[in-house]
Amino acid sequence: MKNNIRWLREKLKSLNLDGMIVSNPINIRYLTDIVAEGVLIITPKDNIYITDARYTEMVNSMLTIEDGIVVYDVKDLSAYDYESFFDFCENVGFEENYVTYGGYKKIMQKYKINNLEETENIIEKQRMIKDKKEIDLIRKACEITDDCFKYICNFIKVGQTEKQIARKIDEYFYEHSDGISFDTIVASGKNGSKPHAVPTNKRIEVGDAITIDMGCIYKGYHSDMTRTVFVREVKDEIKEIYDLVLKNQLEVISEIREGSSFKQISKNVENDFAIADARLVHALGHGVGLEVHELPVISSKADQSVKNYMVFTDEPGIYIPEKFGVRIEDTIAFYEGKCDVLTKSEKDYVIVDKRDGKNF
Amino acid sequence: MKNNIRWLREKLKSLNLDGMIVSNPINIRYLTDIVAEGVLIITPKDNIYITDARYTEMVNSMLTIEDGIVVYDVKDLSAYDYESFFDFCENVGFEENYVTYGGYKKIMQKYKINNLEETENIIEKQRMIKDKKEIDLIRKACEITDDCFKYICNFIKVGQTEKQIARKIDEYFYEHSDGISFDTIVASGKNGSKPHAVPTNKRIEVGDAITIDMGCIYKGYHSDMTRTVFVREVKDEIKEIYDLVLKNQLEVISEIREGSSFKQISKNVENDFAIADARLVHALGHGVGLEVHELPVISSKADQSVKNYMVFTDEPGIYIPEKFGVRIEDTIAFYEGKCDVLTKSEKDYVIVDKRDGKNF
Repeated sequence: MKNNIRWLREKLKSLNLDGMIVSNPINIRYLTDIVAEGVLIITPKDNIYITDARYTEMVNSMLTIEDGIVVYDVKDLSAYDYESFFDFCENVGFEENYVTYGGYKKIMQKYKINNLEETENIIEKQRMIKDKKEIDLIRKACEITDDCFKYICNFIKVGQTEKQIARKIDEYFYEHSDGISFDTIVASGKNGSKPHAVPTNKRIEVGDAITIDMGCIYKGYHSDMTRTVFVREVKDEIKEIYDLVLKNQLEVISEIREGSSFKQISKNVENDFAIADARLVHALGHGVGLEVHELPVISSKADQSVKNYMVFTDEPGIYIPEKFGVRIEDTIAFYEGKCDVLTKSEKDYVIVDKRDGKNF
Repeated sequence: MKNNIRWLREKLKSLNLDGMIVSNPINIRYLTDIVAEGVLIITPKDNIYITDARYTEMVNSMLTIEDGIVVYDVKDLSAYDYESFFDFCENVGFEENYVTYGGYKKIMQKYKINNLEETENIIEKQRMIKDKKEIDLIRKACEITDDCFKYICNFIKVGQTEKQIARKIDEYFYEHSDGISFDTIVASGKNGSKPHAVPTNKRIEVGDAITIDMGCIYKGYHSDMTRTVFVREVKDEIKEIYDLVLKNQLEVISEIREGSSFKQISKNVENDFAIADARLVHALGHGVGLEVHELPVISSKADQSVKNYMVFTDEPGIYIPEKFGVRIEDTIAFYEGKCDVLTKSEKDYVIVDKRDGKNF
């Protein structure tokens, strides 16, 4: 049986659940390696994946008997089959934060379960703790991201539009990885003051700070990195903010210990920003893995603490309305009691379109 | 007040609902033109949009007093405010097919509503009927798609990979539109037998049929078109299937009338395929608009009928396992009693990489 399914079965037992209906495709991938559309049913006896004609062939061809997963085509299942899956079961879990209210009612109707229980993100919480193979895949995605950053810094020239630069990043990722993690952000000058800016037709000007937030996917695993770079010169007013952001970004990395509270880490940054009359308007970070945003949440409202083999971002930012913005973000793996920063791109002032040649 | 909000208020009245919580961002965009993250609250007195610091400035700048929408920053709302929104209300609607079971429970807690009622996709159903402005935006997206098809047919050469071709399509759309509607499909030879193939590194060979499924976004509205093209020659075994698919695709267009049942239309195609021992393994089509897949569903299980100003796809396909596939799809607007085919690309055999020069 797949290791992660074995883990889930133990977990269900400890929660007094007789089975579970897993609907979230990312969780299904985590448990089974299956990438398709369908639902995973953990019954007392079997692990059942229900899909349709589009995927049955592909799914069957990737599974071995050792995986212990039975595949059904949805067309071959009768109402009676659904009712039989959880025969003699009292409590069955479902994903209340993925399944819609309408979907919940359909599950109740179809499976005739006595007690359908919320499972409070048990799989998402387990996904926070990576194994070495997962960290290696994220590491690889981060390496490609670092390469792309060098490539794009050499590409950027005064007069190009934000959209052109974003497209160039996307092309690089489509060429060298399995695609982009999220919509690439390229925000220059004033536009940088919006934390979630969308690339526009604004042209790059001398003196702009450009915030570039980008990431790619490698075998299902994501990277996420932000750098704010400078066009030909670093203005003093931006330098001051940049230094404050970088100082905090580095302090997070050096101060994190096993058991540190993410809430406290975030509050430290917020407090340091407040001294300079600045504000952290978004979370300090988030988990990274099969999704680019996953648990843990790293903010002053977080309730988790740092555990070995977590992978997360550290991304403080300051945004001066109508003027500019600075954000610096790394993807970090925490193990053996310290941070391994997986994205390694330069964090000192990076100046692009230098008059005296290449940046790197 | 925005027209679509006025419509919703009338609709709620007719359903005996005192208000509604609209959570689906596409429905919020449809009602308000707002593109952000937040929730729209229709109370007996007000239309309230609750968002956060990232979006308040942008949202406020795009709304006028005439729009009749009050914007709140979520940080400025107390528990008491939420409880007050639906004071003296009995029945309040919510989107049971968008809100998760967990989200439903949070709404109950926060708003203290007596009776939170399912609304059975009322907004999605209204979105099926487009106005002329919406059809014009879809028409524009379809024009860009036709242009892209010509461009890509001239680009395709023996030896290129499916991925290279898909990337070229994406680049074209990023250059000429607001982005891609969905992950572009380029499936050649054997890969074409998978209806939802992902572009691979397989190289294009002489004699391949290549199924290209693509679409773009223009001001929020989508296009969706598929063509199966031939590399240098048309093999007889593929020709036979192609002709059958095309015949059915054209019959759907010519036979649709106001009030026609989508179920019957689909069954006609299924029956004609069955005579030739073929099977329609997916739906015949789907609505297109602010989403690339929206209502109506067009399949032999559908319960809707054709209405004026619907926009939908007509996309029969036949897939011969391990051999090849053929799918032909147009985006169609239905009005004044007949189909206006918005995607106009050639449907007779399109031969690419001809030895005697350009295709068009």
